[in-house]
Amino acid sequence: MSSSSYLPGKPDQLPGNHLSFAGYQAKHVGFELQNKVATITLNRPERKNPLTFESYAELRQLFMDLPYADDVSAVVLVGAGENFCSGGDVFEIIGPLTELDMPSLLRFTRMTGDLVKAMRACPQPIIAAIDGVCAGAGAILAMASDIRFGTERSKTAFLFTRVGLAGCDMGACSILPRIIGQGRAADLLYSGRSMSGVEAERWGFFNRLCEPAEVLQQAQHYAIDLSNGPTFAHGMTKKMLQQEWSMSIEQALEAEAQAQAICMATNDFHRAYHAFAAKQKPQFEGN
Amino acid sequence: MSSSSYLPGKPDQLPGNHLSFAGYQAKHVGFELQNKVATITLNRPERKNPLTFESYAELRQLFMDLPYADDVSAVVLVGAGENFCSGGDVFEIIGPLTELDMPSLLRFTRMTGDLVKAMRACPQPIIAAIDGVCAGAGAILAMASDIRFGTERSKTAFLFTRVGLAGCDMGACSILPRIIGQGRAADLLYSGRSMSGVEAERWGFFNRLCEPAEVLQQAQHYAIDLSNGPTFAHGMTKKMLQQEWSMSIEQALEAEAQAQAICMATNDFHRAYHAFAAKQKPQFEGN
Amino acid sequence: MSSSSYLPGKPDQLPGNHLSFAGYQAKHVGFELQNKVATITLNRPERKNPLTFESYAELRQLFMDLPYADDVSAVVLVGAGENFCSGGDVFEIIGPLTELDMPSLLRFTRMTGDLVKAMRACPQPIIAAIDGVCAGAGAILAMASDIRFGTERSKTAFLFTRVGLAGCDMGACSILPRIIGQGRAADLLYSGRSMSGVEAERWGFFNRLCEPAEVLQQAQHYAIDLSNGPTFAHGMTKKMLQQEWSMSIEQALEAEAQAQAICMATNDFHRAYHAFAAKQKPQFEGN
Repeated sequence: MSSSSYLPGKPDQLPGNHLSFAGYQAKHVGFELQNKVATITLNRPERKNPLTFESYAELRQLFMDLPYADDVSAVVLVGAGENFCSGGDVFEIIGPLTELDMPSLLRFTRMTGDLVKAMRACPQPIIAAIDGVCAGAGAILAMASDIRFGTERSKTAFLFTRVGLAGCDMGACSILPRIIGQGRAADLLYSGRSMSGVEAERWGFFNRLCEPAEVLQQAQHYAIDLSNGPTFAHGMTKKMLQQEWSMSIEQALEAEAQAQAICMATNDFHRAYHAFAAKQKPQFEGN
Repeated sequence: MSSSSYLPGKPDQLPGNHLSFAGYQAKHVGFELQNKVATITLNRPERKNPLTFESYAELRQLFMDLPYADDVSAVVLVGAGENFCSGGDVFEIIGPLTELDMPSLLRFTRMTGDLVKAMRACPQPIIAAIDGVCAGAGAILAMASDIRFGTERSKTAFLFTRVGLAGCDMGACSILPRIIGQGRAADLLYSGRSMSGVEAERWGFFNRLCEPAEVLQQAQHYAIDLSNGPTFAHGMTKKMLQQEWSMSIEQALEAEAQAQAICMATNDFHRAYHAFAAKQKPQFEGN
Repeated sequence: MSSSSYLPGKPDQLPGNHLSFAGYQAKHVGFELQNKVATITLNRPERKNPLTFESYAELRQLFMDLPYADDVSAVVLVGAGENFCSGGDVFEIIGPLTELDMPSLLRFTRMTGDLVKAMRACPQPIIAAIDGVCAGAGAILAMASDIRFGTERSKTAFLFTRVGLAGCDMGACSILPRIIGQGRAADLLYSGRSMSGVEAERWGFFNRLCEPAEVLQQAQHYAIDLSNGPTFAHGMTKKMLQQEWSMSIEQALEAEAQAQAICMATNDFHRAYHAFAAKQKPQFEGN
């Protein structure tokens, strides 16, 4: 880098701060790492990829580790076999829940909420590729992602009401209204009805409608583009989208002044300027 | 219920906690109770159903009583004779207001705000059926409902500016932007212009466009569907949509973990599971 | 005014509270005052109207003075020569930033945030007229306006990521999601891609699509309409849209009860009532 680099010192090598996902073997979901993009596949296609206690735990642990991962810059979340996810398995999750006492119920709802918390807290943008059934906790995983690509034929349903529960599951009453508006969110959460792919795009839930055969590939291309960008800055974008959720505008402006000043002290900012001055494309390194 | 019911004890029969709306006679609005759905009709059609001090007071009291009502599961709000509501009556409300001192003005604006507070605080979802004129405080009543069905020819106008007032009336600067976005809300509140039925649906203010002859019936059908659902859980959905308005995502996740754990301790959750396991349709009882 | 006027006393003439923009000479932007509408023109068309340290400072000072201006009721913001604004000049701003130490960087990001703060804090509604390029800090100026009229061919890009920075610039992570939804905002802020004019209108970023030749004129007409309205009340609408950003609904209802009671004590409210009673059009005076 040029002499004007702000902190040209060594990259962060503090021990204990780094994890690698190279060769990571997931047990209850599929996991593949390529071009610094991790593709996580919900993969019990014969039952439309329901979640189980085990896959919940694995996903939560995986997203909780991502802030420390050096070799993952973006995440793609997808379901195997033309469906995204049918939600919590009725016999493996809902049945057992009917036998629990109150502290155990709260332990469960906090655990599922912790998965959303981890998805929002990791610095890597999450791109969901949604086809077919996207229901219950599956709809939540889509909602808790940063970017959603879907298909016309997909059906997204927050169907908690169908099993006698409330729409306030894993952050839905807070997050869904901010994506599609309070009125449309209320309709989906009270009625449990399916949102079609066309509605999802029209309402801002899906960022793009894709052909079923292409939705995963397009999500991965988007993820690769982000992973070639200034990934430290992307992580700051994600952090602040979360952090400013309930700030006043004045608090948000001070928070962004600080956050962006940090980004101006990165080498990626300098790289971009020098590339521009030299009429070249910048090569970002995420530091 | 099965042996796995969480709290199979007697339903809540504490004295003082229960109200019935059976046979309730409203004086300044129409009131009808059928299938646990209360239909409230603004009914001065010759003047497009304006609000008066008396109808404000009656509506406020009615909505304040609803949390204690056993026999009302959902509310439909409609206007008589092809208009929803023309807002505060110019001669019966606006004229007298011009004669008041400051404490009396504040008593009035707090009273109208209390109507919105009561509409948001009662556990029953409110479905507004909107045709024709929907203006001023009438537009607010529509906005403060949970679900809005409207007609193409309807005209919704937050026209406070036309009488020299600000758009910040009865929660409009807080609630309207969360339904249709800050930019569109600003336009409506500054200019006082009418939002057409087509715009209202496109922007997420209306959940559905109906034929004028059908808008009330469709709203009632929607309300009956909800009233056949897990009404305790619906009340929790409504409470949390309100409660999480200005929480951080992390606070919202903990709040939902607690709220949903409560719902998992209801018999309706058990009923749904056992019905599913027996391949039957669940019969919810709201407890 | 009639005997029922609330405070018929003299208009506020306290010394030190008043500024006039008549004859104001801007140095780094264009400034024109007509019909109480100030038109501010970003006017370095040969470079698509980039911002410089000087124009930032002048705009910030200008908007900070507006709360004290008697003769400005609304503001139109436009770019010269078929583009709105290309953002911070690469050589005049970005280059120098790469040489700064951390306190100086924070001084810069706080200064740009202060421009947004001043735009949101002044009581005059700001109408942006957007054609052509609207990028970086230019997109922020559009976003921080109250109303946006644009053209189909316009391209709005929050392209901070392209220079290695985060999307959290000048309030974008707080304000943009409230205008177009969290999902669409995330896409624009992570990718830096252009939002087309059609998308901008569809998503609620633009309030209206205009022909390029007419966008300024239509923005000015809208501004003149507002400036003929109850401008004190408009200022209260703007204040409360800002003030209630992160309030609970209950807090918002009390805040609006107070704010609207203040407006009911203005002569404009009385003027509107008496004009209505006399079947005339009210003449508002902003007090």
